[in-house]
Amino acid sequence: MGKSKPTGRITIINPNSSEAVTKSIDEAVDPLRWSEGPVIDCLTLKEGPPGIETQCHVDGVVAPLSDLIRKEDATTDAFVIACFSDPGLHSAREITSSSVFGIAESAYSMALNLGEKFGVIAILRASVIRQQRYVRQLGLSERYAASLPLDTGVSGLESDTAGEHLLAVGQELIDSHGADVLILGCAGMARFRRRIAADLNVPVIDPCQAATIQAVASVRLATAA
Amino acid sequence: MGKSKPTGRITIINPNSSEAVTKSIDEAVDPLRWSEGPVIDCLTLKEGPPGIETQCHVDGVVAPLSDLIRKEDATTDAFVIACFSDPGLHSAREITSSSVFGIAESAYSMALNLGEKFGVIAILRASVIRQQRYVRQLGLSERYAASLPLDTGVSGLESDTAGEHLLAVGQELIDSHGADVLILGCAGMARFRRRIAADLNVPVIDPCQAATIQAVASVRLATAA
Amino acid sequence: MGKSKPTGRITIINPNSSEAVTKSIDEAVDPLRWSEGPVIDCLTLKEGPPGIETQCHVDGVVAPLSDLIRKEDATTDAFVIACFSDPGLHSAREITSSSVFGIAESAYSMALNLGEKFGVIAILRASVIRQQRYVRQLGLSERYAASLPLDTGVSGLESDTAGEHLLAVGQELIDSHGADVLILGCAGMARFRRRIAADLNVPVIDPCQAATIQAVASVRLATAA
Amino acid sequence: MGKSKPTGRITIINPNSSEAVTKSIDEAVDPLRWSEGPVIDCLTLKEGPPGIETQCHVDGVVAPLSDLIRKEDATTDAFVIACFSDPGLHSAREITSSSVFGIAESAYSMALNLGEKFGVIAILRASVIRQQRYVRQLGLSERYAASLPLDTGVSGLESDTAGEHLLAVGQELIDSHGADVLILGCAGMARFRRRIAADLNVPVIDPCQAATIQAVASVRLATAA
Amino acid sequence: MGKSKPTGRITIINPNSSEAVTKSIDEAVDPLRWSEGPVIDCLTLKEGPPGIETQCHVDGVVAPLSDLIRKEDATTDAFVIACFSDPGLHSAREITSSSVFGIAESAYSMALNLGEKFGVIAILRASVIRQQRYVRQLGLSERYAASLPLDTGVSGLESDTAGEHLLAVGQELIDSHGADVLILGCAGMARFRRRIAADLNVPVIDPCQAATIQAVASVRLATAA
Amino acid sequence: MGKSKPTGRITIINPNSSEAVTKSIDEAVDPLRWSEGPVIDCLTLKEGPPGIETQCHVDGVVAPLSDLIRKEDATTDAFVIACFSDPGLHSAREITSSSVFGIAESAYSMALNLGEKFGVIAILRASVIRQQRYVRQLGLSERYAASLPLDTGVSGLESDTAGEHLLAVGQELIDSHGADVLILGCAGMARFRRRIAADLNVPVIDPCQAATIQAVASVRLATAA
Repeated sequence: MGKSKPTGRITIINPNSSEAVTKSIDEAVDPLRWSEGPVIDCLTLKEGPPGIETQCHVDGVVAPLSDLIRKEDATTDAFVIACFSDPGLHSAREITSSSVFGIAESAYSMALNLGEKFGVIAILRASVIRQQRYVRQLGLSERYAASLPLDTGVSGLESDTAGEHLLAVGQELIDSHGADVLILGCAGMARFRRRIAADLNVPVIDPCQAATIQAVASVRLATAA
Repeated sequence: MGKSKPTGRITIINPNSSEAVTKSIDEAVDPLRWSEGPVIDCLTLKEGPPGIETQCHVDGVVAPLSDLIRKEDATTDAFVIACFSDPGLHSAREITSSSVFGIAESAYSMALNLGEKFGVIAILRASVIRQQRYVRQLGLSERYAASLPLDTGVSGLESDTAGEHLLAVGQELIDSHGADVLILGCAGMARFRRRIAADLNVPVIDPCQAATIQAVASVRLATAA
Repeated sequence: MGKSKPTGRITIINPNSSEAVTKSIDEAVDPLRWSEGPVIDCLTLKEGPPGIETQCHVDGVVAPLSDLIRKEDATTDAFVIACFSDPGLHSAREITSSSVFGIAESAYSMALNLGEKFGVIAILRASVIRQQRYVRQLGLSERYAASLPLDTGVSGLESDTAGEHLLAVGQELIDSHGADVLILGCAGMARFRRRIAADLNVPVIDPCQAATIQAVASVRLATAA
Repeated sequence: MGKSKPTGRITIINPNSSEAVTKSIDEAVDPLRWSEGPVIDCLTLKEGPPGIETQCHVDGVVAPLSDLIRKEDATTDAFVIACFSDPGLHSAREITSSSVFGIAESAYSMALNLGEKFGVIAILRASVIRQQRYVRQLGLSERYAASLPLDTGVSGLESDTAGEHLLAVGQELIDSHGADVLILGCAGMARFRRRIAADLNVPVIDPCQAATIQAVASVRLATAA
Repeated sequence: MGKSKPTGRITIINPNSSEAVTKSIDEAVDPLRWSEGPVIDCLTLKEGPPGIETQCHVDGVVAPLSDLIRKEDATTDAFVIACFSDPGLHSAREITSSSVFGIAESAYSMALNLGEKFGVIAILRASVIRQQRYVRQLGLSERYAASLPLDTGVSGLESDTAGEHLLAVGQELIDSHGADVLILGCAGMARFRRRIAADLNVPVIDPCQAATIQAVASVRLATAA
Repeated sequence: MGKSKPTGRITIINPNSSEAVTKSIDEAVDPLRWSEGPVIDCLTLKEGPPGIETQCHVDGVVAPLSDLIRKEDATTDAFVIACFSDPGLHSAREITSSSVFGIAESAYSMALNLGEKFGVIAILRASVIRQQRYVRQLGLSERYAASLPLDTGVSGLESDTAGEHLLAVGQELIDSHGADVLILGCAGMARFRRRIAADLNVPVIDPCQAATIQAVASVRLATAA
């Protein structure tokens, strides 16, 4: 609001230190780039841990993430925090007058448009607990099927059988928990999205894409007539 | 999914017969058009009533709306039903394999990203009842502040004092019901959005924009790598 | 209210075109007829489909159903819409000043008096989704065990093994979902009611009976001192 | 079930000792009597207090009420407990194999068919607390507008201005709490029902009538083919 | 408040007539006794049944329990009703100006501090229904995993295999229902608490201890500066 | 669990840097000290801000708070985080195997034992939003009346009229929002507790006391037979 940047810029911050994850996010949001649209930049939080796997990791990245937001604020029209735990989301909203989107919050809200009950393919058992808590916080329990963990770490996403594993968890969310829309519960799973959707025949949401499209809307509409 | 159209096309259908409303929708979604993005066409349902003010109107437009969806389906990648009662939304989802977005459902889900409690500026007292029922159906009661009516018909939006009236209702939603994000509860209110946001200092959502950005994402991501 | 008909008349409309279903409804409500009580007439909506199996069917019958309600209104004191999707219920309530009861809404509310958690024996998998949405709309999720489908069409109710099939689904609602009261999720299942109740030892609700008794009360009490 | 009584008998028990209240209940349910229908007898619990105004009263009547149910069981097909606190309802359901209906539970469930949000005209401030607790227990909070007290004792219903008082409380339930259907929160208010409905233009439910019609259905359907 | 007793006294009432249960409660709360702390006395309600297994038992003990509370009131600063059905809790709160704690209510609220979802090891299938109803009444459904019954009577707790049985039910609450904190659903199970906690690696709550610590706080803080 | 400390020690950490607040907490929990009971030590987080007034403050104290917990862990049996935003609560539970109690979580759960609806006297308007979010996260919305702000900073609690101000806010929570139990929404308000309770005639909870009593129970019961 009031910042003078011709086309606008969206800054996506990967709060873990893995450049590979940042690159995967960058590819995932590429279809949301247009020549007249906002620039979309993906940054890595170098101070973050390799993967955000515990509540300590979640809370621990807020300080350096806040610093990075402050640093980028003057040249940014909308931020995306690209970790499915939405670390520091409400702090960020105090720091900047630009819109800030959390990828989990955005994915959950997009899911409401695509099915009756959303299921989340989570990385770890511990993430499941955090997701249950967060779904309650968002007031969305009535639309929540379940979260089920892959029980691999973030690094497990690199294995050859990762795709099969995601499909199996997705299938169980559908069969045993009544999910009819799936959410990838991690910033680095986007490359599996279309295959899961095709094989399981339900919509599948990549949370980085869900947040980025909200950011695009926010930038475009901020200055619209 | 599988349809071969280069850039994709979004068909927005205004289910009332008012060309003025269709024109206002067309202007509202203009910031979401890009040269490489999907074509966005706004159609008027000629068989609809001048304004959708009763449940009979809502139910009554489903048949011609369904016909229009069938007619446009071969050349459409995503539909938006541009009436805040989301008429025929679940029928439409049976008719076409393309995504279909309702502007109320999309506005409510966008609101979750922008505040704690959403309030709706409704046209009529009767719309308030329908909105309460719909918010319950969507499972979003915990995030719902209230709907308050302008108590003018759709035509009342044309009066000179319409802007003042919307501001007053918005202010009451904030002051008496705890809303911190407002939704314009009608397809034809978009031109008031920025003024209300500026004057009341809360995010204000035009539901046609909220649904169209979901449609844009849907089209772009359907064929993304 | 104010209509001058000596004993009163209840008009039950079967919105599908099957005369066999209408006949079965007529038999189901027969125990609720008394010589001094309201006349109870069961009509078939000739314009309806043979069975209401999709949302398109649900929405599609509203127009002819509304016409029939208008036609019967002058001689009717209370209407019952006898399809478990409650098609056109809120439109009907706008059309007539008489009370209108939906058989699903009535069955759900009767169930609250008979057990802790109600389970629904549904016809189709697609009906399950509609029922979940409707239970949320009614605000009754905390009392809802589940809906489970027979996965036969409406015509499957005619097969020799239909009774066994309903029993099996009812048993699963009790054993796996904690239901302690069952609802027959279709207007044409009434003849199985007593057998299921006897074999499974739980109350079983025929929704046409549930709505008709509300209609009887409505007619009798409208003119009571 | 299995008891051999030709037409069936409903026993309504007023758990307070006021014969005047019993007489008023008897008149209220008279429109639900038919020559071929079940006999409807209204009994006074002589051991009860003159009015049930505290939780101690509620709990205190369970023992004599249970004794009376045991005594009447052999000749009764359905019981109604005619106090808006539904005292001993779940005990009674253990004591007899006949159906037992509580007037509050029945009134709340009937209200779901007649409006979006029910409001209760309560006798005392202390009843309001009990009603809030009970509505939560029934899982009906999403459909509950509020309870507002007359702040007179049961005896206050006899005063000349009682009708005016009820109208004022009903109006406030509508205006300030969004109620569109009202429930008389006491067994002895039935004579005000039609006047309030006419003056405030919303459905008004007498809870004894609501429970009795359920009992009628229960008796008629228990032996239906 | 205003009673002049130097150190204060907590009266725990076991509403069943089993002295063995009272003795077990007395041992369970022993760690909450301090020389400067309130005296904690455990009384047996001689008029109670040997075990409280039905709703009739629950309602039946309220009268003698109320009498005992009245008798002890002058020398008591806080009461604990030591039956997991919390019989007469709200009556007791009318009878005395001292605080009254129900062991189920206290256990449920303590559980909120120790995990995401609480599971209850119940005695009987019938207790499960009562617990579901009570959890809804308390508004805690979102934090409730399930109750599962031992399906032994209260006396079954005395058998040699009782410990194994509790462990098996606890394990199922964790594995199939997602419980991460367990509640012993009976006043007489305390001696199994530490073993279950150690073997299943989750917090386990004895409800008498949960209520007594609230009573201790109440007594100490009533007169604190 | 397994730590060998004779009487046990509770470490209460005030995450703001105000020694005056720590001293006030120390006085508030004094009635919960006994000679045979656990030692209760109150520490100030020197790295904290003077008052925790924003989400940035909340998130910002987690790192030094975690360090302090790690440092004290070997000599602590239970921790209390003494800020009403419960900063770092779930991180702390990962760091230590001792129990950790948040004062808001504990206060909310204690309130369930003392009334139907709890109201919170908050410091700032911004705290209200955080409290609404947290109550939803805890799944306690059905028992939540409202939070109302004093609209003074933490320092405003020192003014001469602070007591009057708290009383006025408490009265409004009771009169306009139906609260029947009040919670002091800040660690430094304990000295007003008894006056508010006496003047407004409802239970009033100091959250530090609520958490400390849970900690006392935890320590005493960890090693109980």
